[in-house]
Amino acid sequence: MRGLRTEALIAMKLEKLLIDDPESGYLPLPAQRINAQGVAHTTEHVAAERPVALSYNGVSHAVMMATPCDLEDFAIGFSLSEGIVGHAGEITDIGQHDGPAGITMELRITERRIAELRERRRMLTGRTGCGLCGAESLEQAIRPVALVTSSVRITPAMIQAGFAQLGQRQTLNHATGAAHAAALFDGTRCLVREDIGRHNALDKLIGAMQRGDFHAGILLVTSRASYEMVHKAASANISLMAAISAPTSLAIELAREAGITLIGFARGESLTCYTQGKGLLEI
Amino acid sequence: MRGLRTEALIAMKLEKLLIDDPESGYLPLPAQRINAQGVAHTTEHVAAERPVALSYNGVSHAVMMATPCDLEDFAIGFSLSEGIVGHAGEITDIGQHDGPAGITMELRITERRIAELRERRRMLTGRTGCGLCGAESLEQAIRPVALVTSSVRITPAMIQAGFAQLGQRQTLNHATGAAHAAALFDGTRCLVREDIGRHNALDKLIGAMQRGDFHAGILLVTSRASYEMVHKAASANISLMAAISAPTSLAIELAREAGITLIGFARGESLTCYTQGKGLLEI
Repeated sequence: MRGLRTEALIAMKLEKLLIDDPESGYLPLPAQRINAQGVAHTTEHVAAERPVALSYNGVSHAVMMATPCDLEDFAIGFSLSEGIVGHAGEITDIGQHDGPAGITMELRITERRIAELRERRRMLTGRTGCGLCGAESLEQAIRPVALVTSSVRITPAMIQAGFAQLGQRQTLNHATGAAHAAALFDGTRCLVREDIGRHNALDKLIGAMQRGDFHAGILLVTSRASYEMVHKAASANISLMAAISAPTSLAIELAREAGITLIGFARGESLTCYTQGKGLLEI
Repeated sequence: MRGLRTEALIAMKLEKLLIDDPESGYLPLPAQRINAQGVAHTTEHVAAERPVALSYNGVSHAVMMATPCDLEDFAIGFSLSEGIVGHAGEITDIGQHDGPAGITMELRITERRIAELRERRRMLTGRTGCGLCGAESLEQAIRPVALVTSSVRITPAMIQAGFAQLGQRQTLNHATGAAHAAALFDGTRCLVREDIGRHNALDKLIGAMQRGDFHAGILLVTSRASYEMVHKAASANISLMAAISAPTSLAIELAREAGITLIGFARGESLTCYTQGKGLLEI
């Protein structure tokens, strides 16, 4: 009983720490490191995971598990990549409400867009999250994708330079070893967003691209490239996507359809190119 | 135009290859490997990703992107971990239908369970896939978890031995570099399932545990440990879960609640223990 009580107190204290600093994205938790030398009682930085709900004009739409940092970017990026709005200007307000069960991002969108969303929800229950798993039937699973209209010329050395910059700026991953990152790189600047979920990291990046003057470049991701990741890249009109890990078969198929140059296993000087689209890789 | 046509022909041919051998889980695709030495035109083994729909008694319920191997295990494991049935005996039939849009796993479940599912769907649209992202509101996101009733005694050396066995049997990952694995290990035997998605790999394992005589042991996963992964482990009454990568904050919280011993960063002789539940780690 005493052990349980102590654990509950620690949990409460840590929850408080997280609420005190919601933007750090991680929290310290007690753990034991065990190896051949023995046992060490430590405090580990653990990536924060919280339910984050998105509501549009007062109606709850979807909940994702996400790391509670850059949530405004996340809300904007999700709205764009899911096609709920066509451009960020159609989001008229974003509020954030922290409650005991999780965080609600309260978006207001234009009357036209909310009417479309209501109609879509009437037709199709639960298209949410990774964009797919709310789908109920195969016909709903594969969504149309637009041909990207941007183009870019880039060399393998520039991709390597981009990943080097990205690697230095994975703050959350450096602290926790548990976070994915997505980055926009234009040869000089590197815009980075992180999350425990790779879809969320990309949505946060797509949201961040709407602010300021930095909204074109190549996409770098620290994960694999799946169908859903390529679909999100296409929604942001990105013509070259490079992943540290492998692509899936449908990711390659979709990249070809969308005109995206898809690169996998981008590691140091090596990379593998699966499709040649509007992102011109100069070798 | 000629390039496009050739690509379309290759795509058709590869689709056929996949249909010819749906159980391999991967397919050969043309690519270019680029490094400091130059460019090599190669054929890469790419992990197959296809929409897989699950229908219950003729009604489509959910679609996930999954690797099309061990799909019967997947259907059983998903049904159990999502609480659609309480035990595998309540699934009276499983059929598989391959169509152009994807694969449908057609399950028949008992009258009582289908009535419950109808009621649940009436109350709650779209609880699907990763078990969370179909949720529409925060109240739906966190589901109750049962205390595990199993227990196990294990040493760090046994966990290391389990991961060594698992590593040797990741056939899909060896071919593609893109697959996650989940394994049940009892100190001697190791039951392994793979998928491009870590949730799917675990659902396949939970399904495979229903067959034959091997259904207790520790859970090893090649990914991180998230809330959803721990929830699935609890549904399978597993008292110790070890992940190669990090856990999230909610995974730790849920493991504590469910009485699961949660281990992260299990690499060689080193591991980090975050909770001590009914899986006794003897150090």
